[in-house]
Amino acid sequence: MNNLSVEKQIDDEISVKLKKMRMVFFDFDGVFTDNRVIISENGEESVVCNRSDGIGLNMLRSFGLEMLVLSTETNLVVAARSEKLEISCIHGCENKLETMNSVLSEKGIGSSEASFVGNDVNDYACMTNVAIAVCVNDAFAEIKQISDIVLQRKGGDAAVREFCELVRLARTQSP
Amino acid sequence: MNNLSVEKQIDDEISVKLKKMRMVFFDFDGVFTDNRVIISENGEESVVCNRSDGIGLNMLRSFGLEMLVLSTETNLVVAARSEKLEISCIHGCENKLETMNSVLSEKGIGSSEASFVGNDVNDYACMTNVAIAVCVNDAFAEIKQISDIVLQRKGGDAAVREFCELVRLARTQSP
Amino acid sequence: MNNLSVEKQIDDEISVKLKKMRMVFFDFDGVFTDNRVIISENGEESVVCNRSDGIGLNMLRSFGLEMLVLSTETNLVVAARSEKLEISCIHGCENKLETMNSVLSEKGIGSSEASFVGNDVNDYACMTNVAIAVCVNDAFAEIKQISDIVLQRKGGDAAVREFCELVRLARTQSP
Amino acid sequence: MNNLSVEKQIDDEISVKLKKMRMVFFDFDGVFTDNRVIISENGEESVVCNRSDGIGLNMLRSFGLEMLVLSTETNLVVAARSEKLEISCIHGCENKLETMNSVLSEKGIGSSEASFVGNDVNDYACMTNVAIAVCVNDAFAEIKQISDIVLQRKGGDAAVREFCELVRLARTQSP
Repeated sequence: MNNLSVEKQIDDEISVKLKKMRMVFFDFDGVFTDNRVIISENGEESVVCNRSDGIGLNMLRSFGLEMLVLSTETNLVVAARSEKLEISCIHGCENKLETMNSVLSEKGIGSSEASFVGNDVNDYACMTNVAIAVCVNDAFAEIKQISDIVLQRKGGDAAVREFCELVRLARTQSP
Repeated sequence: MNNLSVEKQIDDEISVKLKKMRMVFFDFDGVFTDNRVIISENGEESVVCNRSDGIGLNMLRSFGLEMLVLSTETNLVVAARSEKLEISCIHGCENKLETMNSVLSEKGIGSSEASFVGNDVNDYACMTNVAIAVCVNDAFAEIKQISDIVLQRKGGDAAVREFCELVRLARTQSP
Repeated sequence: MNNLSVEKQIDDEISVKLKKMRMVFFDFDGVFTDNRVIISENGEESVVCNRSDGIGLNMLRSFGLEMLVLSTETNLVVAARSEKLEISCIHGCENKLETMNSVLSEKGIGSSEASFVGNDVNDYACMTNVAIAVCVNDAFAEIKQISDIVLQRKGGDAAVREFCELVRLARTQSP
Repeated sequence: MNNLSVEKQIDDEISVKLKKMRMVFFDFDGVFTDNRVIISENGEESVVCNRSDGIGLNMLRSFGLEMLVLSTETNLVVAARSEKLEISCIHGCENKLETMNSVLSEKGIGSSEASFVGNDVNDYACMTNVAIAVCVNDAFAEIKQISDIVLQRKGGDAAVREFCELVRLARTQSP
């Protein structure tokens, strides 16, 4: 994560949006993970996350940003990781857009103050309904096409950390 | 998975076959996984699958296609994953060709309406007895040579999803 | 594993030795695995093996070759995997050379009829005392230097399978 | 790990420091591992280490060097791995610099006789307070900038072993 390239990655318009941002929604699989799932003989699932993402989320927290993990997956592993990272999480979410909008409306946050970090087609609706659509480098083609920020890192390879660094940069830079 | 390259990957003949296709057989290890197996001290096995394959299989299901996982492996992990993906599965299958042919005959589906997605030499007989032989990018040389479609993705790296996208493309395209 | 390149990989001298070979010794970690070990909170260890190696070992078995896994590791995971692959295994082996020589002498097999597949410095003594020293592509430099065959594949990435294919090729080729 | 390139990697000044070195501090995640963590449904954590690092640590031990793992992580997996490797370990360490300095002072070892192997920003303070700052190849940019030695290998990919080889080389070379 070279700072120079990071600076180039976001133009002034995005930078302004990142400064105004009040809430970040994260998809889980493919964003915090490389989209893989380990399955054991008895059907227990595990996923592979990255320690460095936690350091990034602490930065966002220090800026007072709201964060929520929104996952279609019914499996409890999403909840387990979110708890460790101290982020709220809604899993088994059948309609991500509806859930996202309810949450925003409850909190009195506009979609123009929100960003969504995703990777696959089930993130499409949310990503086209927030100010800043962000995707990992190995996101599916349809998702990359609609993203304001395509991260340099792949899901599970510190992509979340990279996004957090971009936010920090935008927020600590002179205007 | 760039759509342009996907379009190039299948010629008109294959495209016609994909439209006529009624059933897909999948090998498990090396197709849904990268062919690796995690072994614990007490001999418990786990494998690494890809969340994105599930989204692809839902597409195939929506086209009314029959699907079956055929695996030589005796281990229960194949069954566990298949159940989660809601596909039928026969594991511990000693003679894949015989089993495949019985299933086709029971269902009244011709081998000219079937495809098989494989990666290794124990898929050879099945792959040479269906209309569309498909293999992952890291399949063994003998298998690549007899494949009608060599996927761009490796086993476990969304290769199944890629195949499902190809089917969708063939089925939704104007003739 | 392109057959052409495989043919180039072994010259006539090695080919003759592979035909005369009666026994193969395998190191475990770094040969059947990528040398990594998964550690859980309670210290349980797991390793990542490759399904395709099993198909290769069945080939060697069909040629009547003796096989033995020799590992310094005290952990039971070596034994668990060896059992699944139906190969004998000695783990927690403090002096591999001594053990190898005892086994050879018991069986009445000469070191000129044996090969050793290894990856790290604790395989050095064994590898310099058999007719055919074989190493994986990501073996340590000292080991590569003394190897008669440097496999194209890395440990855990079907390197064992590749070696088995080489043996099959040498044994089924016209002299 | 080519010995020639290793020789180039350390200049005479570093070589002298490595000879005088009495103690090595290691961060755990991202150094012994690739910074990833496997999370199961019930929140159990596992990490992926490299068998070859153990052979390297035995070398350092044979030179009589003191070693300590210093980790911010509260999870027990750090302790489990350290115990297997027979290195002391302090985990759940909130202030690494303070802890490092206490340990050094207790043992009567100067910071000019210490090195620290790290990868992320929470290693920064320690790394700028020892004679030899060492980082893995995939360390974060801020950490690479302050490192005396940037290892060629990534965390979890035998980076610790590479560092141990460098120490051995410096200590066994003619002055």
